[in-house]
Amino acid sequence: MSEANAILLLSCPDQRGIVASVSNFVFQHNGNIVHAAQHTTQKSKVFFMRIEWELEGFDIRREDIGKAFSPIADRFGMTWRLRFTDYVPKVAIFVSRHVYCFHDLILRQNMGEIKCEIPIVISNHMDLKPLSEHFGLNFRYYPVTPENKEAQEEREIEELRRHGVDLIVLARYMQILTGRFVDLYRDRIINIHHSFLPAFAGGKPYEQAYDRGVKIIGATSHYVTESLDDGPIIVQDVIRISHRDSVEDMKMKGKDLERTVLSRAVKLHLEHRVIVHGSKTIVFE
Amino acid sequence: MSEANAILLLSCPDQRGIVASVSNFVFQHNGNIVHAAQHTTQKSKVFFMRIEWELEGFDIRREDIGKAFSPIADRFGMTWRLRFTDYVPKVAIFVSRHVYCFHDLILRQNMGEIKCEIPIVISNHMDLKPLSEHFGLNFRYYPVTPENKEAQEEREIEELRRHGVDLIVLARYMQILTGRFVDLYRDRIINIHHSFLPAFAGGKPYEQAYDRGVKIIGATSHYVTESLDDGPIIVQDVIRISHRDSVEDMKMKGKDLERTVLSRAVKLHLEHRVIVHGSKTIVFE
Amino acid sequence: MSEANAILLLSCPDQRGIVASVSNFVFQHNGNIVHAAQHTTQKSKVFFMRIEWELEGFDIRREDIGKAFSPIADRFGMTWRLRFTDYVPKVAIFVSRHVYCFHDLILRQNMGEIKCEIPIVISNHMDLKPLSEHFGLNFRYYPVTPENKEAQEEREIEELRRHGVDLIVLARYMQILTGRFVDLYRDRIINIHHSFLPAFAGGKPYEQAYDRGVKIIGATSHYVTESLDDGPIIVQDVIRISHRDSVEDMKMKGKDLERTVLSRAVKLHLEHRVIVHGSKTIVFE
Amino acid sequence: MSEANAILLLSCPDQRGIVASVSNFVFQHNGNIVHAAQHTTQKSKVFFMRIEWELEGFDIRREDIGKAFSPIADRFGMTWRLRFTDYVPKVAIFVSRHVYCFHDLILRQNMGEIKCEIPIVISNHMDLKPLSEHFGLNFRYYPVTPENKEAQEEREIEELRRHGVDLIVLARYMQILTGRFVDLYRDRIINIHHSFLPAFAGGKPYEQAYDRGVKIIGATSHYVTESLDDGPIIVQDVIRISHRDSVEDMKMKGKDLERTVLSRAVKLHLEHRVIVHGSKTIVFE
Repeated sequence: MSEANAILLLSCPDQRGIVASVSNFVFQHNGNIVHAAQHTTQKSKVFFMRIEWELEGFDIRREDIGKAFSPIADRFGMTWRLRFTDYVPKVAIFVSRHVYCFHDLILRQNMGEIKCEIPIVISNHMDLKPLSEHFGLNFRYYPVTPENKEAQEEREIEELRRHGVDLIVLARYMQILTGRFVDLYRDRIINIHHSFLPAFAGGKPYEQAYDRGVKIIGATSHYVTESLDDGPIIVQDVIRISHRDSVEDMKMKGKDLERTVLSRAVKLHLEHRVIVHGSKTIVFE
Repeated sequence: MSEANAILLLSCPDQRGIVASVSNFVFQHNGNIVHAAQHTTQKSKVFFMRIEWELEGFDIRREDIGKAFSPIADRFGMTWRLRFTDYVPKVAIFVSRHVYCFHDLILRQNMGEIKCEIPIVISNHMDLKPLSEHFGLNFRYYPVTPENKEAQEEREIEELRRHGVDLIVLARYMQILTGRFVDLYRDRIINIHHSFLPAFAGGKPYEQAYDRGVKIIGATSHYVTESLDDGPIIVQDVIRISHRDSVEDMKMKGKDLERTVLSRAVKLHLEHRVIVHGSKTIVFE
Repeated sequence: MSEANAILLLSCPDQRGIVASVSNFVFQHNGNIVHAAQHTTQKSKVFFMRIEWELEGFDIRREDIGKAFSPIADRFGMTWRLRFTDYVPKVAIFVSRHVYCFHDLILRQNMGEIKCEIPIVISNHMDLKPLSEHFGLNFRYYPVTPENKEAQEEREIEELRRHGVDLIVLARYMQILTGRFVDLYRDRIINIHHSFLPAFAGGKPYEQAYDRGVKIIGATSHYVTESLDDGPIIVQDVIRISHRDSVEDMKMKGKDLERTVLSRAVKLHLEHRVIVHGSKTIVFE
Repeated sequence: MSEANAILLLSCPDQRGIVASVSNFVFQHNGNIVHAAQHTTQKSKVFFMRIEWELEGFDIRREDIGKAFSPIADRFGMTWRLRFTDYVPKVAIFVSRHVYCFHDLILRQNMGEIKCEIPIVISNHMDLKPLSEHFGLNFRYYPVTPENKEAQEEREIEELRRHGVDLIVLARYMQILTGRFVDLYRDRIINIHHSFLPAFAGGKPYEQAYDRGVKIIGATSHYVTESLDDGPIIVQDVIRISHRDSVEDMKMKGKDLERTVLSRAVKLHLEHRVIVHGSKTIVFE
């Protein structure tokens, strides 16, 4: 007896009958739908859907569901993926020296808020090795220079493959990944940027925010693309500041934002609630 | 050629096949679903759904849709209502002396944000007559005393019926309605309470909030029931205050909250996004 | 017997003894301080102060206070201005066609939230004439073309002078003012920009925000400088959006932000709580 | 050469000359004021002040400042306390089984956000012993039954005294302290309540919030008094929820609030920014 659910994420050109066909598929095989959400883009008329149903009583074995669903997918020209809620995704965390985002992720994973395994922590610094090891995490040190960057990425990719990593989280990782790396893990690398993008892109957002005299600062979690700080945004949040806040104060206040925003994005991704569509995301909360 | 949509709001005991049956119904009659959302309560396992489709191309005339849908409704034991987006709902506004919520509603209706007619404004004071008339609204004065309360309500109900009123908005109306009145317009009377209910129920919330020294104040829009300040909540919002804020400051800050919260609740109701379930609401945003 | 207060806003290089000297000045002349706030910038070490005291019992006549205070101001090299709370500032509102910010300002002024006179409304369109006149406001129509821009501004400046205008509010005024105009009313022209500046500067912020796929939109009220959208920020606020929001939805949600943010900025300015310092503001809330 | 500042927190009946006298005192002894804030209650006319100045160059030795200030304090009938920013306060954390607030405090203390020592962790359960010891904290286990409650509190008080504890933080400590204990540490025990007080006081706030169908939940940090959940509020914050959130979801979302709110309250207290006045707090942010 299984308590797992199946989740289907799909997109296709909008047309009549998609919802009916998909929900019929689940119903005719005796599935009980527990969540269904859809969205159609206004101009381009692309249809998106997330549907989740209980496997208990469902009369297709989970390894055969994809095949059984294929005719519907083909008819509507769907891009789709199927996930099961009892699969525990494998997450690699990339860090440099800042501890707060990393620590927050580990804490939430420990408390069961974020459901995943963390088979590997990769860093270009040794600073977070003791903390990683205290939590029983496999810490790998790959210092990066302009000369060895590609070679080190090869080693990292090898590690990621060996551990079957599903998602990479850049928890304040101070290195730019190459296009090749990004291609391999398209829509599967989540970064946290310490500003309300697109304002203050680049490496010194708090300094820029201070100089501009803004009254609110933000943080942005997004998928990584070749264009730095320009990937599809998953979560953003903001906090109010005033003229009293120095750059240091802003950094301190921003830390709370950054870690919360990153953890929320990771959680949404791992619950299969995010579909990337061009430069944007559809988030089925 | 019609550009209107049909909206079906329904609830029933949760069971397999509801989504499939409802979406099939729309599809088999050539309807294009533009929005569908559902919710099942955790413990009581009640299923709720809002589904909206385009009437253009739909092969049942709108006056026959209800009849055609009845077999499905009967099979699942549904409570349901059907609405059309080109029907302009009729809203009666009840006011006393405070102008800000009233004014906000009128402004939004004028700007097209809230789609409704306002065939009548009812008040127990004359203060807002000139403003009403400036906006071309039909203002009726029904002063209320303990002695004439029921008789005046009779006259008000007569007016409401004559104008075919669908929704009553108490925009800071300082009178308690009788149980009989509330019964007649169950789930169709929206009130604004100037506190974050259930904190500070009653008539002097800002004074109470001041005395308690809270750091945040709120406003709550809810359907009216016999129990004062206890009806199903539709929208709540809050604003930060400090020890510097006097009761007067809190009232001023609260006004912005109150009018925004009330207008949002009215808009959600008029877009058929709210289902009342016991003492709570399901809001399909 | 006067119930008014005096407010002194000052800035100077930080040094020992400023607070003591200023508060002594008030005390020795029998004034009762009701509010005092200060700020020193971290790097440039500039000191800012707002001090407010009751004129009742104060032993210098209000017209002589400036002279009496001059020796202190001179000693510390202060820039300062003195205001009285019973003076009702004169505000000119510039509008084009959008009504919501304009309406919000008028409403708040009517309800006493914003304490000012509005001797003149200036517009490059006729649309808001009826509303202005309903509220008894003096509406002036100055259509602007590239050819007549400077000449029209001359006429506007003439009007502003004739009415002794203290503050100009651009309540969605779709014209760029010339450098000459801005110079004449430096730090006395408040604009509302419908984005969370510096993100999405320019004329189509909601379209840009939609294209970028942000999850939060904002509004910014700032003093006008020669550089468009680059003046010192007074107030900012934001609202959450999702992939479901079209550009139209964002505009509708943004309206609430824009009007609230603009009104708050105007109120802060009129209560003499804002000091401009370079490209930033000190706001003594 | 000292880089520390002195902070004076004081209150007295409002009267002319307080600000002048206090700032003169600092100035005449060659102190440089870096922060000064004041507040006068509207009805009761009680004056509150926080003033902070640099000890560098100040011509009174820190151990003599109190004596030197006494004549001013006496003249105005002040209640006051003097603190120095280089003193590291000693904080005892009381916990039961929930880890998130405890963990957040430790993390922030480790990162230098909250400046204090934590000489002792007291718990009625063994659960958090390993974590405490990992962080090098002195963990003491005092299981509490109705029978041994007073005796255990005696032991706890003995420990607190031995370590010279300045502040007690109840980081989800599931025991009610006796009146005697509360008296000993009046205005020095900070609790976190997992609701937006005064709504949902008591032990099951999320369940109550769920049953009431609120759209926003909150958390409240307050000083502990004899009346449960009724002490002076220091910080409150809220988060939006919907009908989709189960009690479990609310608990998960609430955790972020609780830990942030508690940490902010502790930080404000340790920076000497909070004065208790009756059932309320003055918070000089």
